[in-house]
Amino acid sequence: MQPKHLVIIGGVAGGASAAARARRLSESAHITIIERGPDVSFANCGLPYHIGGEIEDRGELALQTPESLRSLLNLEVLTSTEAIGVDPSGKKVRIRSLTDGEEGEISYDDLILSPGASPLRPPLPGIAHPRIVTLRNLEDMDRIIDLLGTVESVAVIGGGFIGLEMAEQLVELGKKVTLVELQSQVLPQLDAEMVLPLQREMASEGIELILGDGIEGFEDHDGKPAAKLKSGQVLQAGLILLSIGVRPESGLAKDAGIELGPRGHIRVDGWQRTSVEHVYAVGDVCESPDPIFGGHVGIALGGPANRQGRTAADHIFLGEAAQPYPGSIGTSIVRVFGIAAGITGASEKRLKAAGVAYDSVTVNGASHASYFPGAETITLKLLWSPEDERILGAQAVGRDGVDKRLDVIATAIRGKLTIDDLVHLELSYAPPFGSAKDVVNTAGFAATNVREGRLVPVASLADAAGEQILDVRPPAAVAKLPVPGAVNIPLPELRARLGELDSSRPVFTICQMGKTSYFAARILANHGFDARSILGGAWHQAPR
Amino acid sequence: MQPKHLVIIGGVAGGASAAARARRLSESAHITIIERGPDVSFANCGLPYHIGGEIEDRGELALQTPESLRSLLNLEVLTSTEAIGVDPSGKKVRIRSLTDGEEGEISYDDLILSPGASPLRPPLPGIAHPRIVTLRNLEDMDRIIDLLGTVESVAVIGGGFIGLEMAEQLVELGKKVTLVELQSQVLPQLDAEMVLPLQREMASEGIELILGDGIEGFEDHDGKPAAKLKSGQVLQAGLILLSIGVRPESGLAKDAGIELGPRGHIRVDGWQRTSVEHVYAVGDVCESPDPIFGGHVGIALGGPANRQGRTAADHIFLGEAAQPYPGSIGTSIVRVFGIAAGITGASEKRLKAAGVAYDSVTVNGASHASYFPGAETITLKLLWSPEDERILGAQAVGRDGVDKRLDVIATAIRGKLTIDDLVHLELSYAPPFGSAKDVVNTAGFAATNVREGRLVPVASLADAAGEQILDVRPPAAVAKLPVPGAVNIPLPELRARLGELDSSRPVFTICQMGKTSYFAARILANHGFDARSILGGAWHQAPR
Repeated sequence: MQPKHLVIIGGVAGGASAAARARRLSESAHITIIERGPDVSFANCGLPYHIGGEIEDRGELALQTPESLRSLLNLEVLTSTEAIGVDPSGKKVRIRSLTDGEEGEISYDDLILSPGASPLRPPLPGIAHPRIVTLRNLEDMDRIIDLLGTVESVAVIGGGFIGLEMAEQLVELGKKVTLVELQSQVLPQLDAEMVLPLQREMASEGIELILGDGIEGFEDHDGKPAAKLKSGQVLQAGLILLSIGVRPESGLAKDAGIELGPRGHIRVDGWQRTSVEHVYAVGDVCESPDPIFGGHVGIALGGPANRQGRTAADHIFLGEAAQPYPGSIGTSIVRVFGIAAGITGASEKRLKAAGVAYDSVTVNGASHASYFPGAETITLKLLWSPEDERILGAQAVGRDGVDKRLDVIATAIRGKLTIDDLVHLELSYAPPFGSAKDVVNTAGFAATNVREGRLVPVASLADAAGEQILDVRPPAAVAKLPVPGAVNIPLPELRARLGELDSSRPVFTICQMGKTSYFAARILANHGFDARSILGGAWHQAPR
Repeated sequence: MQPKHLVIIGGVAGGASAAARARRLSESAHITIIERGPDVSFANCGLPYHIGGEIEDRGELALQTPESLRSLLNLEVLTSTEAIGVDPSGKKVRIRSLTDGEEGEISYDDLILSPGASPLRPPLPGIAHPRIVTLRNLEDMDRIIDLLGTVESVAVIGGGFIGLEMAEQLVELGKKVTLVELQSQVLPQLDAEMVLPLQREMASEGIELILGDGIEGFEDHDGKPAAKLKSGQVLQAGLILLSIGVRPESGLAKDAGIELGPRGHIRVDGWQRTSVEHVYAVGDVCESPDPIFGGHVGIALGGPANRQGRTAADHIFLGEAAQPYPGSIGTSIVRVFGIAAGITGASEKRLKAAGVAYDSVTVNGASHASYFPGAETITLKLLWSPEDERILGAQAVGRDGVDKRLDVIATAIRGKLTIDDLVHLELSYAPPFGSAKDVVNTAGFAATNVREGRLVPVASLADAAGEQILDVRPPAAVAKLPVPGAVNIPLPELRARLGELDSSRPVFTICQMGKTSYFAARILANHGFDARSILGGAWHQAPR
């Protein structure tokens, strides 16, 4: 039997993972990678950090080179080569060399499409300005580093993960940074209130944030670009970085008659098979099953890409014995200066938009034992289904340990755990690492209290406007971070001062962190009051 | 109806949690805490760190005071008061004041026993020496701090969690520390090979480690204590700290006819009920269901104690609507200088002793993206059932991110996840926080490769002694950390040099981290060799 010829279009993340796994499964297979760029398997998530100098050595970003792939994995690697057509019936890929323009054809037994997604560059007036850049690969990175040498100010358009990482790194380089985001918040994947600490952190580091404003076009001001915003504002900068999203590079697939999803992603099944036999797709170009909302979703993240590549290789060499890819829940995180924020699973806004029933709590907790030096507050928002009580999603923000809590809840979602399971998660506790009751347990406590009617949650201070608000903090804490319109009765005095409250109206309790306000509400409820707790305390509700 | 009277014996951890939860559930209940010591609800896990000065302020350790419990929770708190008898038929507790010796009786509707466990102090000759101390509470801590003022050297007897934490802190204070452990390893909860990095770290910090040696008795040398070891060695020190384990304080329960387990713990059901009606037990004094091995196990840890206290209160006030405590899997962690090690679920030695079928892999991975500054290697050992492929336990050791991986796997155990689920856990990835393929995913990859026969694991270099060992590292790496008896063929040259190997004998492959040795074994196996991979690479197998 002739050895199988596996052809992979795109040699980064998903493509590189597929090639490596394929070689592990078959020493005899002929494996060819076709890569348009000069580089393969580079650390695309690291690009902002080399621009900012945090990753000093550019060489660190080259996880593999064409030579190392040849010598370690016996791959044929065609760099600077573009795949320009796929003929599924003839099982052939048409290629063109980007160095000499020569064209040719490669036959395949199986084909994996891993072309990725390209940064959006909408056809706005003036978009062709040479100082309006995007960041996708090492060449883009080198160009940006080169341009930054002569630049004092940068406008970052788009407040997603890459926009925030770049804004941070540019500030570290001493640049004056303005960030423009069309939505009224950065990180639109997260719920608005969860990114407020990020926005405050960015402002305190000197970043000018322009939210809820879009781009109408670009101008040239003496060689420098300027962005014309919809609001009328004109934003001049030495360099403009566009990071407003990506578009799957599915043109080749479309031309070959391969089925695409509604947003241009290649449609695949659990084994990453496209609608055309012997053609697979992995990474940012494809959709994957959505374990929470059902249907399919395009998720452009490194982890899923790598594991999808592995899945495709498994199916090619192992057939139906291969484990299918279970879908992506979109776990992601970003660091912005001293703070981190992230999400796993569904956000409240997505649940609301999809009409999925959910309940929600937001709690604060310490990153490790609060009596041990260095503990930082984590704000954790938990969403679950009131029907089967399974966890639907979580978001966290804080200065330490955010990644750990997201990973625990990502694992809980994969395991279909319920809010009761969170109560009794047994997480590692020693003072430098955790707490006897971790904030994840606390979220479980709060969620089960909501289910049982013991905690009547109020998500936002705004929902209590005009109502009877009871602030149970010590007066010193109130003075530092007042809650407008609230009556202050410190918790230890509450039982003796119940008469000061109007028992005919609901009482909305608030405190610093959202814990003693719950205690107060329990006292009130046990005395017959309609008591409701404002979640997350002044820490979460009031600007700080 | 008369309000319920809940009496709680022991006001730390489990007892304090029970009281707080009880008050949340009932404003009218009469709740009394009886505490032998002068303090309630203190941070017992923080005691070593105040001795070492890392927690500067002693006040940080007092999570609550008798006064704060009275004012916040309306509790009756009897400190310096000993419970000296329980009469379950009369529902009464007999108490004695430790200040004036006066005795009295308290009636209860429900009783929670949370007396904890006391440090073992075996009746060895010379044990009464005033400079042989144990550490359980704030009074012990104060006494040790006092004694340390005049002491240059300390012998720590016992290499469990507290022994290691104390040894670390004593070194930070500039003391000369010797640690004696009866077992041939520190942290006997973990498998021996997983604590080698801890032992090396301790030695490099100047701690003298005496392993596999026990105490025969103690002597007095001019006012200073000395430990006589079974080996004959006599160990002189300014102070001797005994941390050889704890014994549940179940005497009161035993006298009251309450059923105990084989090791003296109070036997309880899922709602923490003892064998006697209206008497509950929580924390270190009780057993809890063992979710992995079945039966019951006594686990002395802060997290379980807190949540058991909450469970008992729930059952007292909510009855069978309360969620039962699901048992403890023993998740625990310790920091020793720059390194951390921990466990969740079953160890290999416990599985072996219990005759439970298991498979195992050990892998290395980076704490976050290896191309981003500060990444540290984590060694992760995973144990699973070959029958249902569920995860049975894990251990991890490293300089960063150990707690996160333990917590993820603790959650996976709670969710009954399998090795296939680990492959596709979607953990948060940005360069400062994680990797596209986290070490937890890698453990899943390795485990599924073992299941499918693609990875033939060799747990220990010793198992390869006298066999054909192939080291596939670059020669420079071999020179730094040689593997005795190995032939060196760097991986990129392997395909061309297969002829140098004896295909009639098994080949045991090794590399630096355990990854490329697997790649090499795949090449060999695909060429018909009997190839086996030595797990964890030279990093894990050879002293470093």
